Amino acid sequence: MPSINFSPMLDKMHRLCTQMQAKIILALEAEETTQFRTDAWQRPGGGGGITRVLEEGSVIEKGGVNTSYVHGQLKGQEVEMFKTLVNRVAPDMTASLENAHFAATGISLVIHPKNPFIPTTHANYRYFELIAGKERIWWFGGGADLTPYYLDEDDARHFHQMHKNACDTLSPTTYDTYKKECDTYFYLPHRGETRGVGGIFFDYLRQYPQETLHDFAESCADALIKAYIPIIQKHKNRPYTDEQRDWQLYRRGRYVEFNLLYDRGTLFGIKTHGRTESILMSLPNLVSWKYNYTPKSGSPEDLLTQCLKSPREWI
Amino acid sequence: MPSINFSPMLDKMHRLCTQMQAKIILALEAEETTQFRTDAWQRPGGGGGITRVLEEGSVIEKGGVNTSYVHGQLKGQEVEMFKTLVNRVAPDMTASLENAHFAATGISLVIHPKNPFIPTTHANYRYFELIAGKERIWWFGGGADLTPYYLDEDDARHFHQMHKNACDTLSPTTYDTYKKECDTYFYLPHRGETRGVGGIFFDYLRQYPQETLHDFAESCADALIKAYIPIIQKHKNRPYTDEQRDWQLYRRGRYVEFNLLYDRGTLFGIKTHGRTESILMSLPNLVSWKYNYTPKSGSPEDLLTQCLKSPREWI
Repeated sequence: MPSINFSPMLDKMHRLCTQMQAKIILALEAEETTQFRTDAWQRPGGGGGITRVLEEGSVIEKGGVNTSYVHGQLKGQEVEMFKTLVNRVAPDMTASLENAHFAATGISLVIHPKNPFIPTTHANYRYFELIAGKERIWWFGGGADLTPYYLDEDDARHFHQMHKNACDTLSPTTYDTYKKECDTYFYLPHRGETRGVGGIFFDYLRQYPQETLHDFAESCADALIKAYIPIIQKHKNRPYTDEQRDWQLYRRGRYVEFNLLYDRGTLFGIKTHGRTESILMSLPNLVSWKYNYTPKSGSPEDLLTQCLKSPREWI
Repeated sequence: MPSINFSPMLDKMHRLCTQMQAKIILALEAEETTQFRTDAWQRPGGGGGITRVLEEGSVIEKGGVNTSYVHGQLKGQEVEMFKTLVNRVAPDMTASLENAHFAATGISLVIHPKNPFIPTTHANYRYFELIAGKERIWWFGGGADLTPYYLDEDDARHFHQMHKNACDTLSPTTYDTYKKECDTYFYLPHRGETRGVGGIFFDYLRQYPQETLHDFAESCADALIKAYIPIIQKHKNRPYTDEQRDWQLYRRGRYVEFNLLYDRGTLFGIKTHGRTESILMSLPNLVSWKYNYTPKSGSPEDLLTQCLKSPREWI
C-alpha cells in the first residue's frame, strides 16, 4: 500500500473489486466443469493484481476475471497522457502533473463462451485518484456489455433490464444516459457496426458522493451476474453446427479489432507498460478473418449484422 | 485519372505496381493449386484499387496482393493527419494543406501460408504526391519482411541477401540503413519482440531522382519473388504436427497485434476511411491467443521467441 494519503475510498473500492471477483467466479464456476486458475503479479512501479483465467472449459472457451490495484508517480510520457484526462475531468486543476501521485483499482472481466449461442460479455468497474501538489481528483468509470453471435432479443432485453435496475439506484435517467454512451463507445467506425447489443458505459464519474458511486459500482457488478448467468444456463446445452461455430470465430475478429484499434483501456494499458498478458486476456482464444465475407441475406447471421448497424432500445 | 497536374511518375509508378502485381501472383500461383480472385473497387473520393486474394489454397492459407491508386483533396481531420507527415518530409513547406491535392499509388502484399514451416511475408511499395498551392512534394516508401514460425537461419539469410542485392543498386550503405529501420519499425514494445526476422523498410524517401527510386522499387519487388518463392518450395511439402500448427496460430496473434496496434499503413487506412476489407486482408484467417503461454525452454518454439528478442545481422 502506498504511503501517500489517498482517500479511504481507494482501499474500500479495492475490497469491493476483490469481493466481486470471488462472487462472479463462483457464479461462473457453478456452470462449468473447469476452474479458474490464479496468477498474482506485481507492478514494478507499485501495486499489482490478481489475474484469474479459465481456458478450454466446458462452457467458457476463454475467460478472465481480473482485479488490479496500482499506484505510482507520473513521469515523462504519462504526464502528457494524463493531461488530456485531467483536462476533461477537472479543467480547473492548476497543479503540475509531473510527479503527481496516482492510484487506481478495478475489476475487469471478459467471458468468451464456446457455444456460439451464448454471447460474449465484458464488464469493468474502476476507481481512479490523482494527487498533484495540494489538489486531489478522483473518478469512477465502468460498464458492461453483451456481444452475441446470434441475436436473441430476450437475452438483450434481460441484460439491459438487469443493468437498468442497477442504474435506477442512482437516478431515473442514469440508464438512458449510460446506455447511449455504451452504444457510442463500443462502435467500430471502419465496420459501421457496434461491437454488440450494448449495455451501459460511464467514465469520469464524480458528480455523486464517493460512497454513492461505490454502491452503484457494486449494484452494477451484481447486475452482471443476474444478467449473464441465466443467459449461459439458457443456451449452454444447445447444439450447434460447424457453420455456426465458424460464424462465431469470424465475429470474434470484430472483438479483436475493437479492442486493439479503439478500446481506451487496452491502449492505455499497452502504452503505459501495463501487464500485457492481463490486458490481452480479453482476446478470444480462436479467431478467424475472411476476406469480404457477407452472410446470406435474411439468414440469422445477417439478422445479427443488421442489428449492429443501428443501436436499438431494448427496454 | 485526376485532372490535377501530378508528375508523370504517378502513372509510371502505378503501371509498375500493376505489373509487379501480375508477376508476383504468377510466381505464387505456380506453387499453388488455387488461383487468386479479383476485386476491383472504387474510392468515393477518387481512384480505387484491384484487390487480389487467395483463401484456403493448397500452400497459401490466406494471401492478398493489392494495388491501389487514390487521389483527392485533403479535408478536415485529414489535414491534421498530413501536417505531421509533411512536417517530417518537407519542414520548409509553407502552403496550407486545406484542400491540398494528394495522390498515392502502391502495391501491398501479405502471404500467410498454411504450413508452419513457411514464414509469412509482407511487402509494400508506394509513391505519394501532394500539391498544396504552388508547392509540390513527393516521396517513396516501402519494404519487405519475413515472419517465421520456426527459425530457419538459411531462409533468413537468403531473404536478406536478395533484398541486399536490390538495395546495393541504390548505394552500398542502403541495405544496412533499411535493415535497421525494418527492425525498429516492426517491433512490438508490449511483447519486447520484433514481428519477425526483418528485411528492409524505408519511408519518406526523396533524396534520389524519381526515376532512380522507381527502379529501386522495381528491384525490391523483384527481390521479393527471388527471396520468397524458394522458401515456399523448400518447405511446402514438409509434414507438420498439430502442435506445430497450434504454435503457428498462436504466433499469428502477434501479427494481428502489430498490425492493429502499431502499423502506420493500417491505422492510416482505417482513420482515413480506406477500404476496410483491403486493409484488413493482412490479417490471417485463423489466429489464437493463449493466456501467458511460454514455450518450453530450448524447444524450436523457444528458439524463435529468443531470436525475436534482439535483432540479428543476417549477412
